[in-house]
Amino acid sequence: MQHLEGRQSVEAALRARQRRFEVVLVAHGSHTEKVEDVLAAAAEVGVPIKYVDRASLDAMAHGASHGGVVAVCSAKPRATPEQLLEKLASLPLAEPPLLLLLEGVDDARNLGFTLRAAEAFGAHAVLVKKHLWDFDEVEVSRPSSGAYERMMLVQFESVELLRQLQGQKIRIYGCLAGVKRSVFETKLARGVCLAIGGEKRGLSGAVRKVCDRFVTIPSVPGAASLSLTAAAAVVLGEARRQRLDGAARKLQA
Amino acid sequence: MQHLEGRQSVEAALRARQRRFEVVLVAHGSHTEKVEDVLAAAAEVGVPIKYVDRASLDAMAHGASHGGVVAVCSAKPRATPEQLLEKLASLPLAEPPLLLLLEGVDDARNLGFTLRAAEAFGAHAVLVKKHLWDFDEVEVSRPSSGAYERMMLVQFESVELLRQLQGQKIRIYGCLAGVKRSVFETKLARGVCLAIGGEKRGLSGAVRKVCDRFVTIPSVPGAASLSLTAAAAVVLGEARRQRLDGAARKLQA
Repeated sequence: MQHLEGRQSVEAALRARQRRFEVVLVAHGSHTEKVEDVLAAAAEVGVPIKYVDRASLDAMAHGASHGGVVAVCSAKPRATPEQLLEKLASLPLAEPPLLLLLEGVDDARNLGFTLRAAEAFGAHAVLVKKHLWDFDEVEVSRPSSGAYERMMLVQFESVELLRQLQGQKIRIYGCLAGVKRSVFETKLARGVCLAIGGEKRGLSGAVRKVCDRFVTIPSVPGAASLSLTAAAAVVLGEARRQRLDGAARKLQA
Repeated sequence: MQHLEGRQSVEAALRARQRRFEVVLVAHGSHTEKVEDVLAAAAEVGVPIKYVDRASLDAMAHGASHGGVVAVCSAKPRATPEQLLEKLASLPLAEPPLLLLLEGVDDARNLGFTLRAAEAFGAHAVLVKKHLWDFDEVEVSRPSSGAYERMMLVQFESVELLRQLQGQKIRIYGCLAGVKRSVFETKLARGVCLAIGGEKRGLSGAVRKVCDRFVTIPSVPGAASLSLTAAAAVVLGEARRQRLDGAARKLQA
């Protein structure tokens, strides 16, 4: 069992119904208005609440920023490739798959922010390498504003999964600096998996080999490269823009 | 005098020529290949190098991540409104001003990442509130990959500056959640200042009053809001997209 802390993360996890909960611990003397959303979510899912001393929570939690709420629960489950393919197969035709593949993320907070951007722009799942599961869950969950709890996360071990996605007509586009084709000139309103590498090493050779195409974010010459969160936000935001644009055109036609 | 640490930040600061340098301290025994870019930059600008014990650098620096290089230099200068207006007046006609206004940033690292995105997408200056100067410079400079050193930063004290910008035909667009107009449907290839508020409170009433228009990043209903870095990257990336698109159209015509 793990500890998950903070009102927002715990409420998001309860509502996402991906983890198994043993108990939600609430500090004695917490303001009712502040914890009522968590209490309501726990009641809906049928998870017991236990009131404890704030000092016990402080001892369990990473710092004093738990806000009076700590949950004892299972780890966030990793979706299997089969679950991913099943989810993609169930999408409406008007909603082509949008996936994000992350390699070489070096910081739990950046992963959290990136998951938030993925959720905001409608990604159906995020594929992550095994080492990302070694990050402290609390450190990922908090900056994600709950997106970590809601997003389908698939552990990506071998490029076999990418080939399976290609078999489902999903294109794998690798984001690289300095290639000719701009992401802004690339059709993203079809089924795509956008692969982004870490700031230090970029995409691995294994992933590059499978990519259908490489695309670049056309930044100003001489400028520093974008951070992971910024790069993911821009490519996913562009996919969202094209998808909304396509929907708007269809409405007008 | 301040201390600036890390090879990348010090080299960027030397080349940006905005700070006054007293000396660049390099640890005895640093690998020549690793510090040669810093040494070359210092030589170009005529700043003396002094070799010192690594332990002295450790004592001066925030941690052990200075990489053997610490500079003793003035703080990063804040540009005045006059300097900003002068810079904007000197831009070529084909390059309409692109400005970013940040309010309520709560974290030095996010500011650094955001400045990196601003530089990558061609912002000419970033307007920041006074409190942002209270952040630890090293904590902003490092994640910015040098963008903090190169970017023109203007201390924004009153909306008078925004009115002056409007007098120069620059539109002030406030980014807000939930307004009708999407940033993707807004012309950003003209002179614009994009105003983004902090994650907690958003834009201040004073700035909202001056905005010519409010725009939103059309995220998926029910998703968490974007982080500051992600929001800035998306709106600036869209400005860049439109500007490149406009340039491409002109070339074709």
